[in-house]
Amino acid sequence: MRGYIQVYTGNGKGKTTAALGLALRAAGAGFLVFIGQFLKAASSSEHKALSRFRDLIIIKAYGREGLLKEINSIDIKLAKEGLKDCKKAILSEKYKLVILDEANVAVHFNLFSIEELLEVILNKPPSLELVITGRHAHKKLIEIADLVTEMKEIKHYYQKGVLARKGIEY
Amino acid sequence: MRGYIQVYTGNGKGKTTAALGLALRAAGAGFLVFIGQFLKAASSSEHKALSRFRDLIIIKAYGREGLLKEINSIDIKLAKEGLKDCKKAILSEKYKLVILDEANVAVHFNLFSIEELLEVILNKPPSLELVITGRHAHKKLIEIADLVTEMKEIKHYYQKGVLARKGIEY
Repeated sequence: MRGYIQVYTGNGKGKTTAALGLALRAAGAGFLVFIGQFLKAASSSEHKALSRFRDLIIIKAYGREGLLKEINSIDIKLAKEGLKDCKKAILSEKYKLVILDEANVAVHFNLFSIEELLEVILNKPPSLELVITGRHAHKKLIEIADLVTEMKEIKHYYQKGVLARKGIEY
Repeated sequence: MRGYIQVYTGNGKGKTTAALGLALRAAGAGFLVFIGQFLKAASSSEHKALSRFRDLIIIKAYGREGLLKEINSIDIKLAKEGLKDCKKAILSEKYKLVILDEANVAVHFNLFSIEELLEVILNKPPSLELVITGRHAHKKLIEIADLVTEMKEIKHYYQKGVLARKGIEY
């Protein structure tokens, strides 16, 4: 089975969540999955839930704890190391699905360049399904992707002042 | 914690998948989840994956096996019974998250009316988070929803002749 490059971008809710759903479905089919999360710490409810799939889904987070206010050299170092880690997972040919969560945002904030990201993506094994999420997908990524969905915000309760809620947003 | 009404609609990939991700995240936080799937049979990889969460996630499918070519009285009966089942789950106050997967499509095909759907939705307990997915969300649903994301297809490999693949699309 050939694997494709999927991109989930846009300003609406559901990008990382859709990638998680893909991971779940793939695991249901018995596939091995690798998830690398940029700009996030490993403290969310999804990490807890995925601990039931330790045999099938590996999830790693390459971000710092707490709210990101300003990018500093630690963020850059963590993201660059994370991208290397994802590259290793991709090239290992162990996984059927690899998710680079928020990699678009990492590019947008110059934690690594679009060229560095594309180099990793374009060297994927043919059978690997690769999913890249995050706002502000670079147009070079959209060009080479096989599937692109824009999650468009039509309405969002954040506009009503609702804060992110454990178990729903994180 | 107040619960909201979330809608995932549009022609792009990722609607059901995002709902699955939400279920996973909610289960990670220890919440009980109910998923009712319209127009689908219980044969997909997600059902298999979710069997690891039998203590937290209930998933039911109210559709027939095989491709839906024409709506008949069996589909209508199954969908109407399904909606009743979801209503019972919603009113039970047992669940923190209820997902009505493809309910928009069920309305679009007149399996039940938008009024029947809204009656169920608007009587939800205040603390319940309710998620409705599927193309062609009715404008009355969008009006009352707290969050609406349109999954917009920018590019899709189906256009290249790729068929739905086990573990990725179902």
